[in-house]
Amino acid sequence: MEKVTVVGAGSWGTALALVLADNDHEVRIWSHRQEQVDEINTKHTNSKYVPSIELPETIIGYSDIGKALEDVGTIVLAVPTKAIREVLQKISQVTLTPLTIIHVSKGIEPDTLKRISEMIEEEMPSTLLKDVVVLSGPSHAEEVVLRHPTTVTVSSKNMESAEYVQDLFINQHFRVYTNPDIVGVEIGGALKNIIALAAGITDGLGYGDNAKAALITRGLAEISRLGSTMGANPLTFAGLTGIGDLIVTCTSVHSRNWRAGNLLGKGQSLDEVLENMGMVVEGVRTTKAAYQLAKKMDVSMPITFALYDVLFNNQSPKDAVDQLMARGKTNEMADLFNYLDKGTM
Amino acid sequence: MEKVTVVGAGSWGTALALVLADNDHEVRIWSHRQEQVDEINTKHTNSKYVPSIELPETIIGYSDIGKALEDVGTIVLAVPTKAIREVLQKISQVTLTPLTIIHVSKGIEPDTLKRISEMIEEEMPSTLLKDVVVLSGPSHAEEVVLRHPTTVTVSSKNMESAEYVQDLFINQHFRVYTNPDIVGVEIGGALKNIIALAAGITDGLGYGDNAKAALITRGLAEISRLGSTMGANPLTFAGLTGIGDLIVTCTSVHSRNWRAGNLLGKGQSLDEVLENMGMVVEGVRTTKAAYQLAKKMDVSMPITFALYDVLFNNQSPKDAVDQLMARGKTNEMADLFNYLDKGTM
Repeated sequence: MEKVTVVGAGSWGTALALVLADNDHEVRIWSHRQEQVDEINTKHTNSKYVPSIELPETIIGYSDIGKALEDVGTIVLAVPTKAIREVLQKISQVTLTPLTIIHVSKGIEPDTLKRISEMIEEEMPSTLLKDVVVLSGPSHAEEVVLRHPTTVTVSSKNMESAEYVQDLFINQHFRVYTNPDIVGVEIGGALKNIIALAAGITDGLGYGDNAKAALITRGLAEISRLGSTMGANPLTFAGLTGIGDLIVTCTSVHSRNWRAGNLLGKGQSLDEVLENMGMVVEGVRTTKAAYQLAKKMDVSMPITFALYDVLFNNQSPKDAVDQLMARGKTNEMADLFNYLDKGTM
Repeated sequence: MEKVTVVGAGSWGTALALVLADNDHEVRIWSHRQEQVDEINTKHTNSKYVPSIELPETIIGYSDIGKALEDVGTIVLAVPTKAIREVLQKISQVTLTPLTIIHVSKGIEPDTLKRISEMIEEEMPSTLLKDVVVLSGPSHAEEVVLRHPTTVTVSSKNMESAEYVQDLFINQHFRVYTNPDIVGVEIGGALKNIIALAAGITDGLGYGDNAKAALITRGLAEISRLGSTMGANPLTFAGLTGIGDLIVTCTSVHSRNWRAGNLLGKGQSLDEVLENMGMVVEGVRTTKAAYQLAKKMDVSMPITFALYDVLFNNQSPKDAVDQLMARGKTNEMADLFNYLDKGTM
């Protein structure tokens, strides 16, 4: 039995708190909204984020970050990417012992082009940081809270910490693998949202399953090329945090990024789409970041570049797909796997 | 402009004939059913297999295999796997020149455990066989005839022949890649039907997208393990004929194998399923062949073995999934990619 605090009470944070409680750990969950904390502690529900789910009574809500972290050595950081630095600054002011920080967010920071574990290392004083572990994989929170079979991967620079997190979470419904390639695990989770947007566009254009399968496969190839240039093992992208997460995001109508792409494919402008969605579409920011990374590192990413033109240069989605199809004849192995020549394996 | 005969006028053969006709080749299509041939030549339709599609008038139907092959050096072999040997025996009796045979079927022959290109090499006298080329990838015929964007891969022991076939088929809607790994291209296409059956089962059990994504990802890993033991390049399985075809087959309700699995997951027995489907479910035969191959070659294939128990040993689908989830803790990279140690790259 361990003490763990989940920082952030959205759907994913709540689902992970439930897995930890199922495993008999002492689980606290922090939210800055007192109302939500009260609901968790009195009704044992979090109706806005995991409707119709009864939470174990052992999960205790806190609105005071200091109390939430008292005597705790392990936290799950489950806040939106853009709130991470601010929340870490709060945490570093109240914690007294070095923390193992498990982060479960997906994205690349605009402008700095940093991965999330890099942001955490920058923000936390080294005396207050034991290790950073990332947890990622094909996992809709809606299904995890129903205890449907789910698999995820954990990774860290320190594999002992990754194995510690594997032990914390693994159970009959929630299968946890370890993978030593933290760069690949983080990049795969972030970049898959680009391909989900593109898959939504081809669906919105009415192009069918063949086109979508091609897009996912070729999208995986270019994610792998960028990732391996950044130091990832390209084979990580064939695993749960690469192709697995890509499949879940591209084939589910629940995916926010897919839905945004679908509206773009049907003819709406980016401004209209974002207004209609009324929430953050991570893939839009990630497309910009990946475009900048690919330019900086001189990596070929035809799908990302085409999507960038659709999002930011008023390119028509149909013309973008037609141009992708009209590229020169290629050898799949040379084209798909030339990143292997970079000696990263 | 080339002369090409498509042998077999089912949906896939007809779709490929249409692509070739779009590219201005002289296209013949053979069927043993005179009625179907007459419909193609007079109405320019093949209503049973590609309903509501008007075929180019340049596609000429033949019921006489000798006439269909006269002066032709290239054929597309588009018949069911179990009819291949018989059809090749007919062909070898009437052809006079060495043929380039493009095969587009997916399967492993029961008992002999041969790939389709091996069957072709066995049946055709070497004087009558120029080269075997396989064409495979994520491609529902229904979408190809609508000229929706589609990508496929061609492979051959002789890459000049593969490039010749690439040139025959490539156009604005139908993008063709080459890949030198014929073993991987053939095995990927065959084994994906096993995973489609298993995906149908988890959907039939009501287990959701997380479980299916895990199954596809881990299924890819075991297909890759078996394939690389058979001499394939494991990276082929990350391409169009591996993960690409797997996605199309596992996420489309049009897939016969997915539908059969779905009925199994809902509680029907194999006999009931096959009776209700009223047609061949390739994945059932392929599961047996893969099980035998894995035993013979000592390759770990937990999903295939679980499916084999469901199909042939009355194992309950739910127990099979639960047992897969309860396996020991593993390192994803070691588990997923240990085939790379075999020195096949």
